[in-house]
Amino acid sequence: MAKELKELTKRSENYSEWYNQLVVKADLAEQSDVRGCMVIKPYGYAIWEKMQHILDGMFKETGVQNAYFPLLIPKSFLSREAEHVEGFAKECAVVTHYRLKTNAEGDGVVVDPNAKLEEELIIRPTSETIIWNTYKNWIRSYRDLPILCNQWCNVMRWEMRTRLFLRTSEFLWQEGHTAHATREEAEDRAKLMLKIYAEFAEKYMAVPVVQGVKSETERFAGALDTYTIEAMMQDGKALQSGTSHFLGQNFGKAFDVQFLNKENKSEYAWATSWGVSTRLMGALIMTHSDDNGLVLPPALAPTQVVIIPIGKTGEQMTAIDAKAAEICSELKSMGVSVKYDNADNKRPGFKFADYELKGIPVRLVIGARDMENGTVEVMRRDTLEKETVSLDGISAYVKQLLDDIQQNIYQKALSFRDSHIYECDNYDEFKERVKEGGFFLCHWDGTVETEAKIKEDTQATIRCVPYGVEQTSGIDMVSGKESKYRVLIAKAY
Amino acid sequence: MAKELKELTKRSENYSEWYNQLVVKADLAEQSDVRGCMVIKPYGYAIWEKMQHILDGMFKETGVQNAYFPLLIPKSFLSREAEHVEGFAKECAVVTHYRLKTNAEGDGVVVDPNAKLEEELIIRPTSETIIWNTYKNWIRSYRDLPILCNQWCNVMRWEMRTRLFLRTSEFLWQEGHTAHATREEAEDRAKLMLKIYAEFAEKYMAVPVVQGVKSETERFAGALDTYTIEAMMQDGKALQSGTSHFLGQNFGKAFDVQFLNKENKSEYAWATSWGVSTRLMGALIMTHSDDNGLVLPPALAPTQVVIIPIGKTGEQMTAIDAKAAEICSELKSMGVSVKYDNADNKRPGFKFADYELKGIPVRLVIGARDMENGTVEVMRRDTLEKETVSLDGISAYVKQLLDDIQQNIYQKALSFRDSHIYECDNYDEFKERVKEGGFFLCHWDGTVETEAKIKEDTQATIRCVPYGVEQTSGIDMVSGKESKYRVLIAKAY
Repeated sequence: MAKELKELTKRSENYSEWYNQLVVKADLAEQSDVRGCMVIKPYGYAIWEKMQHILDGMFKETGVQNAYFPLLIPKSFLSREAEHVEGFAKECAVVTHYRLKTNAEGDGVVVDPNAKLEEELIIRPTSETIIWNTYKNWIRSYRDLPILCNQWCNVMRWEMRTRLFLRTSEFLWQEGHTAHATREEAEDRAKLMLKIYAEFAEKYMAVPVVQGVKSETERFAGALDTYTIEAMMQDGKALQSGTSHFLGQNFGKAFDVQFLNKENKSEYAWATSWGVSTRLMGALIMTHSDDNGLVLPPALAPTQVVIIPIGKTGEQMTAIDAKAAEICSELKSMGVSVKYDNADNKRPGFKFADYELKGIPVRLVIGARDMENGTVEVMRRDTLEKETVSLDGISAYVKQLLDDIQQNIYQKALSFRDSHIYECDNYDEFKERVKEGGFFLCHWDGTVETEAKIKEDTQATIRCVPYGVEQTSGIDMVSGKESKYRVLIAKAY
Repeated sequence: MAKELKELTKRSENYSEWYNQLVVKADLAEQSDVRGCMVIKPYGYAIWEKMQHILDGMFKETGVQNAYFPLLIPKSFLSREAEHVEGFAKECAVVTHYRLKTNAEGDGVVVDPNAKLEEELIIRPTSETIIWNTYKNWIRSYRDLPILCNQWCNVMRWEMRTRLFLRTSEFLWQEGHTAHATREEAEDRAKLMLKIYAEFAEKYMAVPVVQGVKSETERFAGALDTYTIEAMMQDGKALQSGTSHFLGQNFGKAFDVQFLNKENKSEYAWATSWGVSTRLMGALIMTHSDDNGLVLPPALAPTQVVIIPIGKTGEQMTAIDAKAAEICSELKSMGVSVKYDNADNKRPGFKFADYELKGIPVRLVIGARDMENGTVEVMRRDTLEKETVSLDGISAYVKQLLDDIQQNIYQKALSFRDSHIYECDNYDEFKERVKEGGFFLCHWDGTVETEAKIKEDTQATIRCVPYGVEQTSGIDMVSGKESKYRVLIAKAY
């Protein structure tokens, strides 16, 4: 492993290659033999589970309930909402038959031509259509509203170029779908869910995000507004990490979901949808990790502390084992997940490298001399700093250190991000500087033409109209036309 | 709702219809517009989530880790294991294309004939093939073993006749897949998982089960042994509620998964797989519920206690609200989930019927006179018995009552089951009595012919060779041949 570790490409040499290698070497995920579909390995899945658990609790706090809707969507449903079909119906997996039969040679199976479906079924790329087709039967009166459903599931979009966690044909996500009696309530819900995503990213993932609203071009297919959180990776590129959509009455109308309002008049229901996916794993990895491997925020690390003994004699090991058991028990009672690795078929150096690669936030090493001195060596993964600490009160010390690491990696990511956000008013300068990455706050005239030109010239896109930025009017750097506000522009994953 | 409740068919009139109505009326699930696929509604999903949570913890206690494998399986993978393809490749959803395009009329979408897959992909009916294809790359040496993976996911089998939860084309489940260095270890794991399923069914679902091993005919396709838990529904029919398979080296050989053992010799890995599904919801519903609606075991009820106020004046309501808040807070601190329903747009009678239908284990009603007397009316859903209890210590009383209900419904189901298990040695008698349901312990000569004749004559099947039954040799009631043991025979869902 120490040897393999050396093979991890440095970020400065090839950031993209570093990422691809890290995901595989840290046992997070791998490509499967099914084109574009990944296998999420136990270590990667354990991190995703922690994310799920926290997000699920945050959703439920706001009244959201989980449910489950069908994987397959009749083809005709996709055509109901005009923009939605443009956005989603094109690259998707189509089920056309429901039976196989033994082939003529008797050594394999072939599709049974007699088992052709009357109407083809699509594997859900997103579930607005099937869910609003269901809501139609659930909604009669304003008393039935709001409906606040979420589902954790798999979805599929037939991507031509895939990368583990960032863009795969099949991925895991949650999709919330709410129905409301008023426009205002739906808009509030869409904004609330964005706020929850931002809080989750910053507090648990330690990933600072810019919140904002998408331009028309970048909106979800079928939405009136798409709210987004955008994170900056270490190469200065943006990663869209979660979106929340105000869908207006588009799906209410497409699926004829009407209700009687308080005045006993019929109205179409108002909708939102919102989702985050296993893409968050990519954001987590690329924000914090380094040339030695993963750096995980303690809040999401499946194992927060590892203890490694270094003893030469059986007597020494017995004493260290006992001390380690004591520390483990204390830490567990404090809610800290800890692993004691006294496996004797791996050398300490191998273990050190492996746990660095896996991003375990804190490592304790207890040697024979430590036992004599009543000390322990503590290493924090984020800075790789080591110090020798008294065994007295070590658990409280470690608990505090975990909090410090959580704060530190957030602050580090925040400083990096903030030092790579630039106001820019000159297009030539922009074109030159954007090559190096970073977020650019630029005036925009609001036209699709300008947006398209920027993308064509630089591959950068308008990520959002950011919140929390004091906006003044100015001049669009591309067209020279008047602009009401600055938008955030960046190259993106 | 009180009105609708009356429409619930009685079990004695039509058990099957009673079940179908109850699932829909209690808001557990409904049919979708996609043939054979269900929508699991929030209340049903909340019960399933509780099941998942408990089972997941039990699995992890034994070292199992969660992971995620692709939804789609290349058609050729299914043919690798000869028996497996017979069992699973026939009725399944086949993906043949990966793109739609706008139709000639411009008003819909059609399958793009240019986007035909070279090899068709199957939506997983079960994942042995794709998982063992992956394990091939994970296993080199005995040091890589055991691998103990589980995934929570959706699967699809194209069922012609479907019933909510019991048999649907798409369903949710967990599937565990383990790889071992020795036959013994794999067999032990398969048996261990069955034990866990049985413990879960009895302790949490309050459903007594018969554990046993399947006959060759009823085995999982590709298994050397299938272990099963069989529950008895109130109509005396059996519901197979969970299975665990010892797969021998069949998949190790089919996917060439070899490892170097301690003697440095190459061997094929040994396998198990095991699963429970949303079918457990059907077992839960049919074991305990009655003509008034659901009866849920407290251990799995999303809401364990509901409190309903009956006050006439604003002053009375204020006093009841305060008292209820106190009880809620106490119960919550004891880990009891409680809902206070003081909605004033529904009459108490409506609420009573609704919560009975939903199976909330305990109902408290606080009226004005109760406040004066320092009492509360307590109703337990399992027996529908009401009693008036002092408000002093009510939370501890309720907590104890929940435990009593959990025990009582288990005992009730156990008594029912045990009083409907018969030893039978006469085939004419068997044929007559099996019409009324029940589990029959009969001698079997071990032949496929006898098994087939019983099924043809009576529709009943050999559910398993049961554990925990003292076996003696005897005479097969059908063939008159010698028999080594009795098997459990029943009509089944």
